[in-house]
Formats: sequence, structure tokens, C-alpha cells
Amino acid sequence: MFPAPDIDVHSEVPIYRQVFQQLKDSISAGRLPKGSRLPATRELAGLLGLNRTTISAAYEMLESEGLISGQVGRGSFVTGGTHTETRGIDWKALLTPGASAPPPSAASREAISFASSRPSELLFPTDEFRLSCEEVIGGAGVASILQLGSPGGYSPLRQRLIAEARHEGVMGPGDDLIVTSGCQQALDLLQRALVRPGDTVAVEDPVYPGVKNLFLGAGAHLTGVRMGPDGIDLDDLRRVLERERPKLLIVTPDFQNPTGATMPAVSRKELVQMARAAGVALIENGSYSDLRYEGHPIPAIKTEDTILLRSYSKIAFPGLRVGWAIGPHAVIARMIEAKQLSDLHTDQLSQAVLLRFAESGRLEAHRQRILKAGAEKLRAVLSACERHLPEESMFTRPQGGMNLWVRLPEPLDAGELLMRAQRDNVTYLPGRYFTVSRPDPGGLRLSFAGLTVELIRAGVSILGEIFRGELERTLSARSLEPAPALV
Amino acid sequence: MFPAPDIDVHSEVPIYRQVFQQLKDSISAGRLPKGSRLPATRELAGLLGLNRTTISAAYEMLESEGLISGQVGRGSFVTGGTHTETRGIDWKALLTPGASAPPPSAASREAISFASSRPSELLFPTDEFRLSCEEVIGGAGVASILQLGSPGGYSPLRQRLIAEARHEGVMGPGDDLIVTSGCQQALDLLQRALVRPGDTVAVEDPVYPGVKNLFLGAGAHLTGVRMGPDGIDLDDLRRVLERERPKLLIVTPDFQNPTGATMPAVSRKELVQMARAAGVALIENGSYSDLRYEGHPIPAIKTEDTILLRSYSKIAFPGLRVGWAIGPHAVIARMIEAKQLSDLHTDQLSQAVLLRFAESGRLEAHRQRILKAGAEKLRAVLSACERHLPEESMFTRPQGGMNLWVRLPEPLDAGELLMRAQRDNVTYLPGRYFTVSRPDPGGLRLSFAGLTVELIRAGVSILGEIFRGELERTLSARSLEPAPALV
Repeated sequence: MFPAPDIDVHSEVPIYRQVFQQLKDSISAGRLPKGSRLPATRELAGLLGLNRTTISAAYEMLESEGLISGQVGRGSFVTGGTHTETRGIDWKALLTPGASAPPPSAASREAISFASSRPSELLFPTDEFRLSCEEVIGGAGVASILQLGSPGGYSPLRQRLIAEARHEGVMGPGDDLIVTSGCQQALDLLQRALVRPGDTVAVEDPVYPGVKNLFLGAGAHLTGVRMGPDGIDLDDLRRVLERERPKLLIVTPDFQNPTGATMPAVSRKELVQMARAAGVALIENGSYSDLRYEGHPIPAIKTEDTILLRSYSKIAFPGLRVGWAIGPHAVIARMIEAKQLSDLHTDQLSQAVLLRFAESGRLEAHRQRILKAGAEKLRAVLSACERHLPEESMFTRPQGGMNLWVRLPEPLDAGELLMRAQRDNVTYLPGRYFTVSRPDPGGLRLSFAGLTVELIRAGVSILGEIFRGELERTLSARSLEPAPALV
Repeated sequence: MFPAPDIDVHSEVPIYRQVFQQLKDSISAGRLPKGSRLPATRELAGLLGLNRTTISAAYEMLESEGLISGQVGRGSFVTGGTHTETRGIDWKALLTPGASAPPPSAASREAISFASSRPSELLFPTDEFRLSCEEVIGGAGVASILQLGSPGGYSPLRQRLIAEARHEGVMGPGDDLIVTSGCQQALDLLQRALVRPGDTVAVEDPVYPGVKNLFLGAGAHLTGVRMGPDGIDLDDLRRVLERERPKLLIVTPDFQNPTGATMPAVSRKELVQMARAAGVALIENGSYSDLRYEGHPIPAIKTEDTILLRSYSKIAFPGLRVGWAIGPHAVIARMIEAKQLSDLHTDQLSQAVLLRFAESGRLEAHRQRILKAGAEKLRAVLSACERHLPEESMFTRPQGGMNLWVRLPEPLDAGELLMRAQRDNVTYLPGRYFTVSRPDPGGLRLSFAGLTVELIRAGVSILGEIFRGELERTLSARSLEPAPALV
């Protein structure tokens, strides 16, 4: 099989150079042996969602290094370059099969980036953070924070989280709580506790890559449940539960990533009943729940039959990795075991600082500020989409969170158009990173929370211009095509 | 199969109560169905390394609750207690098979604990830590520390670690570096990158539970290589490499945990050649290397064919989870992918604070102080062992690190004697936590770094008294036994 290059659109390395380097590596490593035929530039461009000239530039570099040679009418062939490994260990051969590469976690600083679902640095309350930090390091307990800790979590933080969860009604007598290094680790520990290779895991479709790649990497069979305007589509879920009998079902009921959709209370009740009847382990990702900018909050799903994940990353500081999971004793006990094997315990300095940030009331004050700012950003992105996107586009209308989902009209391909957008200094993540079993070439995620209102407007305006221009171009090109012969 | 209780010797819950509760749980959950026979008290006591009276106390409690019933000459039988689950989801049935439970990570505060391989809180330079923290949070870069970071590590720290590694000669042109949440996570990421279920992984025997349980949990077949006074036994390793063809070999060449043994330079060279010839991936755990109290430092094994793990946990603060791995590009790239799926990235506050602690020179000043204190503790534990342990005991003589290994003379069983020691307020970890394929009932680990010289002396003196007393008792009991009849 042809080893297709894996392109990082956010890298500082130009894309043609990435294609060149990766093909060169494949030739040196013998994955593209002498005599093998490279795909045509058009074909590879299509495969990678890139411009054909990008591929041609990469092929020219390979040719100039004597690694491939083009033959008119036949294509390009590998002519050399394979060298025998002089090293003792062939590390690449030892690697386990990798999951598909996750999208880059941070975008380049100069661009207007809609690519990362994260808060804005400009809103970080650095003075309040410093105060919390100083109070922690000035306190008497500092030596115990520096000492080896407990895999279940830093006890004072854990106690506070338990008290809050009981007060909110999301922690019953059969439940326990574990502090994790963010919500991503909670999912990883659940994967270790509950999933064996070959098990079926049902996720939302589209879903964010952190879920998708984690369970694929664990050897699970992923099945996607269609997302609608009211969150996960219960009719589709019913079919999936009946036909595929998944072991796990992971749902983000509030401001789902990437669609921004929220499940109404009545669907949540029905979801719990369906999951219970099917004997499927229901995991509720609540990492965005505290970020509602409009409308009324809807209680968490959490019952004695579900596991709830929460995190400080979205409402405080993602650079401090602290989240938690609440669920049945037996599951949390196994997660604690897995946690000890993963990394012993969560960093205690950050646990202590976030505890202080919360118990001092600074967290809630900060949350009120980001809710206010978030409401403005949400209005800005929605009205900019309304104004600038091609008329036939569809986009979701979230009431909170950090993301919305756009579907461009056919034949636009959000993956292909990304290169063009990046040339104009705007970036986003196209649908392919999120789809599970329903390719959605027109889909893309706009993560708006990290940007200012001004940049949101400017960015969507630039995107709108590119998308509208491309739509006009393709439609006029089509109208110029000769009508197909009827006979 | 009988569901043997899993006892936590460090718990505040009395052991007979733990046995009672776990058997009760097994009965309720139907794992011990009505009519099934419990093991005889003597049998279960032997299995768990506990006193027979402990088991009897637990059985009496079960009987008083009407859950079991004893029949003279036949044993104890389950008489009731199974109740049907009213909950919708049987979470226990959904769990993947767990690894054997790791030993508890922290001991109770009152006891003299030789159980945990960690530094002493009394030596933590809290003022220097506070200064480093204040310098970080007072700096201009604080917002970028709080923002989502890179899975490879906080860039300023990563750059410093790379420069240091190059300077030390442990990072070649083909190598890259990833910052991890401590050394344990580096091992976990390597497990994800390199190990498939059924792969053979060679480890030292005895080895610390964090290695053993991690790879067992990943479905690997573990094979133990005998430890000698000079570290891993190369003759035994040769046999293992030939017969078992492991994919990975994990070695701690300096002050190995639990034995404290160090490999001489000449064995390290031979080890590398053997690993290379066998095509096995050699992983060097260097977490204790900077803790040499006596003798001359021996250069790290690290070649272009190996992976080196390092950590701040042993020389600074284990509560701040920061370690790193250096190895071939392809492996580090895969570890970075796995890191992103595990927990996105390592906590940035701790990375920044430890960077400041290191670059300010405070880390090196602290290291000099713990080397001085460590030398005193090492002398204290060795002379106390010399003085107090039964004459026929053997123990290792490390030149650094945090641990030494004791082997009590036959027929003493370190697991059985632990209960007695705990009654006298001294605790340690018996050999069963560390053995891979060579049971060593007389073996135990003494972790001395976390204790003061006074407590080391007091603790070993108490242990010596118990061990000598037990040895005298068993020997005199033997001499009273009637000689076996010859015909």
C-alpha cells in the first residue's frame, strides 16, 4: 500500500516540503522500493486534500535528488535512495500500529485560528491566579504538596469536589470520585478500565479527535451516532444499540464538541433509559457544561448508572491539567489502579492552586466574566456566519461552549479550501478530523472562544469570501462544461 | 476460582475487617455462590501471607452475619447473602481484567515506614521552591503557561533538557526528547508505542511494582532476569534473550529499585552489545542516577540504540510530576502521539517551576544537600542492618539511591512477618511485590531515603528483634519435633 504522507497544516514547514520529506523517508526506509510507481500528482492531491501544484513541487524535489524519475504517459517511479540501515535496532519496525495522527494541538500565533477549542489567554485572571498560587506556596501544607501523592487525587481538592457534586445531586451513595490530569485522561482511564480490543464503542458523529483517536488506538471498533440540532439522534442511537450492541456510549450533552449542540432535558431522560435497557455504560462528558451563555441550564444526566466527567480546563486554565470523574465505586477503583500505572497521581501543585482558586471564590468570579465574554463572542460568530458564509451554508446555533459546526454547500470541500484559507492567514479544522462513519466534506469546526470579537468577525469574513468565491468559480465552471451526450 | 481478598497492609482498616468485607462483597456479588466452600483458615492465611487468627476473626464475623456456616471436619460454607442486583448496569461485569493491585503509594504517618521509595519531606527546600514559584508567576510568560500546551513539553524546559542532554553526551543527532508526567508515564507511553498483548518484555527480577504491573496490565508476557550484586546478571540475560526473544528490555543501571545494585561500566557495554545483537529495544531507567552518595559516577548507557528515562521526582519533588525520555525520533514521535491521547500534555505550571528551580542553580544546591544527607542515611541503614538483622541475613550494599534489599534466612517469610512488624509500628514491602518469576519469601525492600537517621536506626533495630526472635522460635520448635521414623 502506498504510504500516504501525513500533513500537518499548522506546521511551520511548507506543505510541499512535508510531502517531499515524508516520501523521501519512505523511499529510504524501503517502504517505497525501487521501481514502485508513485500516484499521479492529481491523484495524490485528491487523496490528501491538497493542491496539485503542491504535489508537483514535492515530486520535482524528489526528482532533483535522483530519487524518482518521471516517464511521460506512465507516471513517476522510484529510481533509488534505498539504503540499508546501519543502526542495530529498527525502531520503526518495533512500533505498534499507530492511531491516525491527531490534529495539531496549537495553531501558529500569527493566524486567526478557529482551530483550537480553548479559552482566550486575554481573559486569564493572572492576578487572581498569582494570588491563589502565593496563598498555596505560603501555606503550611506546601511540603505535603511536594511529596508523593495519592492516585485518587489531592485529598483537600477531592473532598471539595465530592461535597460540590453531592450538593449538585450528581454523586450518589454508590459513587466515588477520582481526580485526573484533565478530561482526556479520564477517558483514557475509562478506556483502560472498560475496553478490550474489538469492543464496540459508540460515540457522537462528528466527535472531537481526542475521543475518536483514543478509542481507535485502544483497538476498539467505533460506531458513530448521528448528531442532530438537539444533540445525539435518539432514533439513530436506538438502531446502533440494537444492531451493534456497543459496550460504551460517550455523550457530551452540553455544547458538544464539535457541533455545539445541547440535548434537551426530555431527551436526556430517554437516553438514560435506552442506555440502561441496552446495558451499555453511559459516559457523560460535562467539560463544557458550565459555559452556558444563553438559555436555562439543563441538569446533568448523571444517574447511578452513568459516569460523569468534569474539568477545570475550559472554565479556568487548560495548561493546568486537572479534571475529575464521578461514577460507581467499582469503576472508579479500577480507574485509580490504572491511574497509578499511568502516572502515579495528578500533579499536586496545580491541584492545590486550583482548589485555592475555587474556594476563594475567584473561579466563580472568573466564570462570570468568561460567560459575559462568551456571549458576545457567540453572537459575533453567529452574525458573522449569517452575513458572510455562502447563502446555502448551514451552521449550528449553540447556546454555550466553544464551538460551532458549519456545513458548506456542495461541491465545496472544507479540507481542500483550508490551504487557501491559510494563505489568507485564517485556519480551522475540516470535517475529516471529526467524522466517525459519515464523511462530511463540507463540514468544518469553528472554535470561537479563543479569539476576540474583532478577530472572529475578520476571520469569518475572510472565510466567507473564499468560500463564496470558490462556489461561484465551480458553479460557473460547471455551466461551461458541455452537456453530456445522451447517446 | 476462589476470589482471594486483596489486602492493603497500609490501610487504616484492620486486616481482619478487610478480609471480612471483601469476602462479604464476593458473596453478595455472587462470586462466592451459596453452597460454595471457603478455604480452611490455615490455607487462606498461607495464601495471603497472614496470620491464621486474622482469618478466623474474619470468618467469625461472616458467620455472625449469617453469611457462612462452619461444619466440623468439613469446613465453612456460604449459606446466604447473594442478592440480585437492582441497578441497571453491572459495572463489575464490564471491567477489563485488572492487573494485580499495586502496593499502596503512601504509608500511614505514624509508623516508621521503609515502604515507599521517595525523598524526605524534611529536606524539601520550601523557601527555594517558593522563590522559583514566585519568579514564574511574576513573569510575563504566565498566560502562556496557563494556556493549552504542547504534548512534547513546555518549550523552554524542553530546550534546557535537550541542551543538558547534548552536553552530557546522552542525546545524539538521531534522538528527540519528550517531557512526561514523571518516569512512570514515560514507561506507559513506551508500552503504548512498543508493546502489543502477548509481546515478551524482559525486566529485572526483582523489579519495582510500577514496571511489573504496567506491562502485565498491557497484556505483555513478563520475563525476569536475575539481579546480582552488579545489577542485571548478564549470563541469565543471554539465556533470556536467546530463549524468550523479548521485544523490550528495561534496565535501571544505577541504584536499581528494589535492590540498590549498580552495573559497572564494563557490564553496561556488554549489555548494549547483547541488546543490539538480539534486536531488543533497550530502555534505561535513569531516575536514580543523580543520587550517588559514594564512589565514582558511571556514564549512562544511552547510545543511539537505546531510550533513556529521567525524572525530577527523586532529586526534587515527587508531587510535581515531571520526567522526560530521550530516544530515536521515530519512538519519541509515537510517544508524543500517545501522550496527546493520554492527557494532552504535562502540567505546565510544574514544568515552568521546575525549570526555574533548575536554571536558578537551586536544584543543584538542593541535590548537594540530599547527597550529603543520603550518604548519612545509607551508612545508618547499612550499619543498622549489620548490627540488628539475624546473622545469616544477606543485604545489598548500594552506593546511592533510596533502597536496599534484604534476604532473611530460611525459614523466615518477610510477608508473614510484616504483620508483626506493623504491630510494632514499622513497615516495609515484602518480596512478593517485586518478584517476577523467582519467588523470594525471605526478600524485602528497605526504602531508607524518606526517613531520618534516627528513625532508620530505630526501625531496623525493631525489625531485627522481630526477625531474630522468630528465627529462634522456629529453630527451637524444629528441634522439638520428633525425628521422622526411618521405616
